Amino acid sequence: MTRELTVSIDAMGGDAGPGIVVTALLRALERHTHTQYLLHGDEAVLMPLLAAQPRLAGRVIVRHAPERVTMHDKPSQIVRRGQNTSMWRAIACVKAGEADVVVSAGNTGVLMAMSLLQLRTIEGIARPAIASIWPTMRGRTVVLDVGANVSATAEQLVDFAIMGEAFAHAVLNLEKPIVGLLNVGSEEQKGNEPVRGAARILRDSRLPIAFHGFVEGNDITQGLVDVVVTDGFTGNIALKTAEGAAKLVGQYLGMALRRSLMGRIGAMFARGALNALRRNLDPRASAGGIFLGLNGIVVKAHGGTDDIGFAGALSMAIDMARADINARIAADRRKLEPAAEEEQAALT
Amino acid sequence: MTRELTVSIDAMGGDAGPGIVVTALLRALERHTHTQYLLHGDEAVLMPLLAAQPRLAGRVIVRHAPERVTMHDKPSQIVRRGQNTSMWRAIACVKAGEADVVVSAGNTGVLMAMSLLQLRTIEGIARPAIASIWPTMRGRTVVLDVGANVSATAEQLVDFAIMGEAFAHAVLNLEKPIVGLLNVGSEEQKGNEPVRGAARILRDSRLPIAFHGFVEGNDITQGLVDVVVTDGFTGNIALKTAEGAAKLVGQYLGMALRRSLMGRIGAMFARGALNALRRNLDPRASAGGIFLGLNGIVVKAHGGTDDIGFAGALSMAIDMARADINARIAADRRKLEPAAEEEQAALT
Repeated sequence: MTRELTVSIDAMGGDAGPGIVVTALLRALERHTHTQYLLHGDEAVLMPLLAAQPRLAGRVIVRHAPERVTMHDKPSQIVRRGQNTSMWRAIACVKAGEADVVVSAGNTGVLMAMSLLQLRTIEGIARPAIASIWPTMRGRTVVLDVGANVSATAEQLVDFAIMGEAFAHAVLNLEKPIVGLLNVGSEEQKGNEPVRGAARILRDSRLPIAFHGFVEGNDITQGLVDVVVTDGFTGNIALKTAEGAAKLVGQYLGMALRRSLMGRIGAMFARGALNALRRNLDPRASAGGIFLGLNGIVVKAHGGTDDIGFAGALSMAIDMARADINARIAADRRKLEPAAEEEQAALT
Repeated sequence: MTRELTVSIDAMGGDAGPGIVVTALLRALERHTHTQYLLHGDEAVLMPLLAAQPRLAGRVIVRHAPERVTMHDKPSQIVRRGQNTSMWRAIACVKAGEADVVVSAGNTGVLMAMSLLQLRTIEGIARPAIASIWPTMRGRTVVLDVGANVSATAEQLVDFAIMGEAFAHAVLNLEKPIVGLLNVGSEEQKGNEPVRGAARILRDSRLPIAFHGFVEGNDITQGLVDVVVTDGFTGNIALKTAEGAAKLVGQYLGMALRRSLMGRIGAMFARGALNALRRNLDPRASAGGIFLGLNGIVVKAHGGTDDIGFAGALSMAIDMARADINARIAADRRKLEPAAEEEQAALT
């Protein structure tokens, strides 16, 4: 019954090199049957890695790409002359219909620029967004945009709400995800023009979205809503600031425990609990960034990820491909345009 | 030698009522000699509280105010007809030169609106900002604006840099504070127009400010720079998101420790260390919000603060009043206007 899925992988993307990609494939094949993989990168490097893993035989095809995108490449420079890179070619397989989804741990800005150029946005969606999954007191919350754009209009924020809601529905398995708009206060008159305009549209439109209203920064980790919508400037800074704050608490905790004998004894006893805490906050669990709004599914693993993190990104990509999230986004987006909606109704 | 300072206090501001203000005064008088206090609020409430504390006799004067600002009041509505409130009158004493500084734990939006209306901004400064002190791996970092405005132009961000630098110099005792602009990346081409414009001005002007360049969200808590400049929308969300993330880690830690016997034993041994961690992250240590850019010093204690937090806000206010921070802000601001600077040079 399960449809065979093809995952296209930029194997040269992350800081750790293609070795972790191959190990991640072993993990992914344990969890996901009915999947095959197109591995883009330097044949001379990839072939020996695969030869050492006979369990991957018959599931993985290597596509040689002579070049690679580095972390220092600027999107504006590489995007037009990067057609020989493993990243470009990995995306091209999705564009050509050869693969259902593409995963890369490479340069985020270049991955977005190349994806946008090749895949284009879903009809009606002006800009793609990068979504991120946060651990919260109640489970997980999707936050977007965390960095595809440096600003957003009211209409673009509404698009992000549609995209985030579809993602939370399809991948986090929430029947009716609750959507909030990130703002400096929860009262109606608060905030800048884009967020107030987006709130008006979300309240008044015929979109089938459960809109909570405004949420504040501290509401994200409390899990007040399932989807938090913001512009890419604020969202990127909020994400990195939260990571920094969590890291600071961890560092303080370590320092406080090491400072005294009692602290060190306590840490010994509590080692299991402290390890559980570390797992809970492990950024590898978040699968990196999910690109939404494109005609094709693109998942960005953390640049510094290891095989566990890359396997998580593969799982996320496979879940998204199976969920057909883009159909929901396109359908919701059409509901924003009354004319288009009536046309649609007349056709069915 | 030490000049006598007068602190004007809105005694009716915080959630906890005026009781904590009186206890905070006892703490403040232990640390700060040569200070006296004007207490604005309901005489019938304040007089008995003071009568019970004979150590405050001769240091505190009560000024009756028949009304008070509540947390539900809207700035736009209360600001013109709130002249009988304890908050308005506390600010008016600074305006009249009767007091050097005003402290309130009341409604932030109303406190800013009333302060702006009565005190106006320093010459050359278009907008005031709210600064917040964050604990970091290296000490403390000033972040501003955390909510006075919902947007900022490049020029306003530069003003915030001047204000934050003067504050860090005067109150955090840093000879040459390092200033960074909060952005979505550290490379020069990153970000929106205001941050890129502000970076150009800070690099090219004759301002005597040590400008680091762009910093990212996670750099704040690592203490990469002493002053982090951002617009009030992003800054407010970053602040609350960081508080939420730190709280989440604390909640995870508590859950992890309680879940197993070993965890509970470990927590017993590590109690001292865990309490030290809690103190390090205590928001009461941050003194709330500091209003910068006004012709007068205004400190906002946390609305939910207790006597320890309010005493911290009093200490901060007294330190600021002694440091004459506004003279430095005005002098730096004049350096941005070449004509004004030459005029200034001709006069001296």
